Amino acid sequence: MTITSFHPPQRTLMGPGPSDVSDRVLHAMARPTIGHLDPAFVAMMDEIKILLQYVFQTKNELTFAVSAPGSAGMECCFANLVEPGDKVIVCQNGVFGGRMKENVERCGGIAVMVQDEWGSAVDPNKVEEALNANKDACLLAFVHAETSTGAQSDAKTLVELAHKHDCLAIVDAVTSLAGTPLKVDEWGIDAIYSGSQKCLSSSPGLSPVSFSQRAAEKIKQRHTKVQSWFLDLNLVMGYWSGEGKRAYHHTAPVNCLYGLHESLVIVQEEGLEHAWSRHHKNHLALRAGLEQMGIDFIVPKKDRLPQLNAVTIPQGVDDADVRTRLLNEFNLEIGAGLGGLAGKVWRIGLMGHASTQKNVDFCLNSLRAVI
Amino acid sequence: MTITSFHPPQRTLMGPGPSDVSDRVLHAMARPTIGHLDPAFVAMMDEIKILLQYVFQTKNELTFAVSAPGSAGMECCFANLVEPGDKVIVCQNGVFGGRMKENVERCGGIAVMVQDEWGSAVDPNKVEEALNANKDACLLAFVHAETSTGAQSDAKTLVELAHKHDCLAIVDAVTSLAGTPLKVDEWGIDAIYSGSQKCLSSSPGLSPVSFSQRAAEKIKQRHTKVQSWFLDLNLVMGYWSGEGKRAYHHTAPVNCLYGLHESLVIVQEEGLEHAWSRHHKNHLALRAGLEQMGIDFIVPKKDRLPQLNAVTIPQGVDDADVRTRLLNEFNLEIGAGLGGLAGKVWRIGLMGHASTQKNVDFCLNSLRAVI
Repeated sequence: MTITSFHPPQRTLMGPGPSDVSDRVLHAMARPTIGHLDPAFVAMMDEIKILLQYVFQTKNELTFAVSAPGSAGMECCFANLVEPGDKVIVCQNGVFGGRMKENVERCGGIAVMVQDEWGSAVDPNKVEEALNANKDACLLAFVHAETSTGAQSDAKTLVELAHKHDCLAIVDAVTSLAGTPLKVDEWGIDAIYSGSQKCLSSSPGLSPVSFSQRAAEKIKQRHTKVQSWFLDLNLVMGYWSGEGKRAYHHTAPVNCLYGLHESLVIVQEEGLEHAWSRHHKNHLALRAGLEQMGIDFIVPKKDRLPQLNAVTIPQGVDDADVRTRLLNEFNLEIGAGLGGLAGKVWRIGLMGHASTQKNVDFCLNSLRAVI
Repeated sequence: MTITSFHPPQRTLMGPGPSDVSDRVLHAMARPTIGHLDPAFVAMMDEIKILLQYVFQTKNELTFAVSAPGSAGMECCFANLVEPGDKVIVCQNGVFGGRMKENVERCGGIAVMVQDEWGSAVDPNKVEEALNANKDACLLAFVHAETSTGAQSDAKTLVELAHKHDCLAIVDAVTSLAGTPLKVDEWGIDAIYSGSQKCLSSSPGLSPVSFSQRAAEKIKQRHTKVQSWFLDLNLVMGYWSGEGKRAYHHTAPVNCLYGLHESLVIVQEEGLEHAWSRHHKNHLALRAGLEQMGIDFIVPKKDRLPQLNAVTIPQGVDDADVRTRLLNEFNLEIGAGLGGLAGKVWRIGLMGHASTQKNVDFCLNSLRAVI
C-alpha cells in the first residue's frame, strides 16, 4: 500500500478548538526550521515570553509555552505544585475539573471536590465552605472557562478566597486566554495554563503557562523531585530563562513556536481589549440568531463565555446527523457535547481568528439549512 | 515595545538535530488546520500509524506519535512501564542514559547503572553481569544511538540478553530511526521512542513510539495508575486506536502531524534500506574529508553512527569561535559537545534530508575556511 501526501479539506472551525488558523500563522509555521539553540531562535523565544506576558496581563518572570498541548500545561502546573500528601480543593463544573482531580491524585495529592452543575459557574460560597472545612489545603484549582459547557467562573473572587485561606490558586484558562477578560497579576493568579489553539488561533500543540513568584517559591522549596522530568520547571527554565547561557533541556517544537509567535503578534496588533470586545460582539450576534431559531443556551446569561456557546439541541433533531451534514455539505465544524452532555448540546466556538460576523452568519445559515 | 513577525535565517542544519526540514514538509505544515476529530484527520492518523510501523519495521498495534518532543516519548515509555519499586538496568554511555536514570527514579523505580565510557558502545558483557546480579530486575533500558557521542550499540544482542533474563527492553532510537538499520520486530524490542526532527527531518515536537504486545500487557496489568495523565497509554490509545469511535483525550498537534506524515511519505518513497545506505555513504565521504584535515572521531570505527559524527576539536582551535563563524559566515550549524564533552568535540549531523553529498562538501569547505 502506497500512502501519498495528505491534503486536508478547507474547513471553517467553529467547534471547541482548534479554531481557524490564519494564513499569516500558517505561513509562519512553514518558515525554515533553525536550531533550538540558534541565537535567532533564542531571541524569538524572548519575544514570545514578552507577548505571553502581555496576553496573560502579567509581569511573571516564569511565563513561557510548554512544548506540548494544553493537557500537558495542566499537568505541568499540578506536577510542579502538588507534592505527595498535599490537599487540593478542586472545583468541578464540567469535564476539565475532573481532569484536574486525576492530576492531583496522580501526583500523590488529595483532591477535595467542590461540585457544581455542568453549565453553572463555580459557586464561591461552596468554595469558601470547602476552604473552611479543610484548613490544611494548600491549593485551590478551578477552570476559568469550562470548554465542555461554555460557563465562565469568577476567577478574581475565587483567587481572593484561596489567598484568604493561604492557598495558591491554579487556573485553567485554556479557552479564556485572549477571548474574555483575564488579568493574571490584578487577580493574583499563582499558576495558569492555556492552549495555543483556542482564542490565540495558533495550531494546537503548545501550552502557554505563567507562574507567580509565590508559586515559583513553592516549586523551589519542594521536598520531592517533580515526578515528570519533561515538565520539571526547575529544568525547563534553564532553557527558557533569559539569564546567561541557555541550557539544553529538550528540543523545542521550532515551527510550532513560529506559529505561536505570529498569533501573538496578531493579538498585539489588534489589542487585547479589542479582541475581548470583538468576541463579545460576535457572541451577541450569534445568540440573537440562535434565539430566533428557538435554540437556547445551557448557561445562565451572566455566566456565558462569548467564545464557546453551548446550546441545547432542539427536540427531534439528530445530533450526529446535523454535525455530519454541516461538515460534509458546508465544511463547517461545530462541537459535540462531552461527557454527560453528549447528544444533548452543541458547542459553537467563536474563537480568535474565527470570531467574525462572517462566521456567525455562515453558521446560522448553515444550521438553518440542515435542521 | 512592538514586536513584529519573525523571519528566521536560512540555515544548513548539520548539528545533532533538528536537521534540515524539506520544503515538502514545511508546505505540509502550512496546510489548513482541521479538527482533531475530523474524519479526514483521523484517516491521516491511521496512515501515520502504518508509515511508522514501516519505519520501525514492526507490526506492533501500539505504534503512534506522542504529541510532544522525544524527551516526552522517553517519559512515555518509562512512566507506563515502570511501577514504584521496579528494578531497571540502565546502560549509560552518554547523556541520555543519565536521563533514563532520572526517569526511572522519578517513576519510583530503582535504577541499576551499567556504565561505559562516553564514545563507546554499551558492553554486552557488563549488561549480562548486571542482569545476573539483579535477578529481580524487570526492565533493561539503553540508547541505540547516543546523540551525545555518536556511538551505536548492538541493540539486537542487548535485547536478547534482556529477554533471556525475563526483562523487557526499552530502547532510545531518537537518532537512529531511519538513519541506520533498526528492526523492532526482528530484534524483539518491547518499547521504543524516537523524535521527529532527526533522520525523519520533520519539525521537532513529536515522538514516534512503539510497544510490543508484551509491553502492552505489562501496562494493562499495572497495580498503580500511570503517574502522567497526559502520557497514560491506556487513555492515549482511546484516541489513536483504529477500533470504533475515537475518544477525545487531548488536542493533537494537527499541523505538526501533517509535517510528520509528509516526512514519512518521503522515507517510504526513498525506501528505508536506501535511506540507510545513503546515510552510510555520506558518512564515509565526510569521514574521508575530516581525516584529510587531521580531524579524528571519538568513537571506534565499528561503532560509529553515520548520521551523527562526534569529532575531536583540533588542538589550539577555539570551539565557540569556530561554531559562531560557521553560523554567521556560512549559515551552517554544527553541534557543540554535551556534558563532559563540552569544548572537546563537535557533533556533525548528516541526518535525513540533510544527509547529502552537497552538505558534506559544504561542511568540509566551511570548516577549512574557518579553522
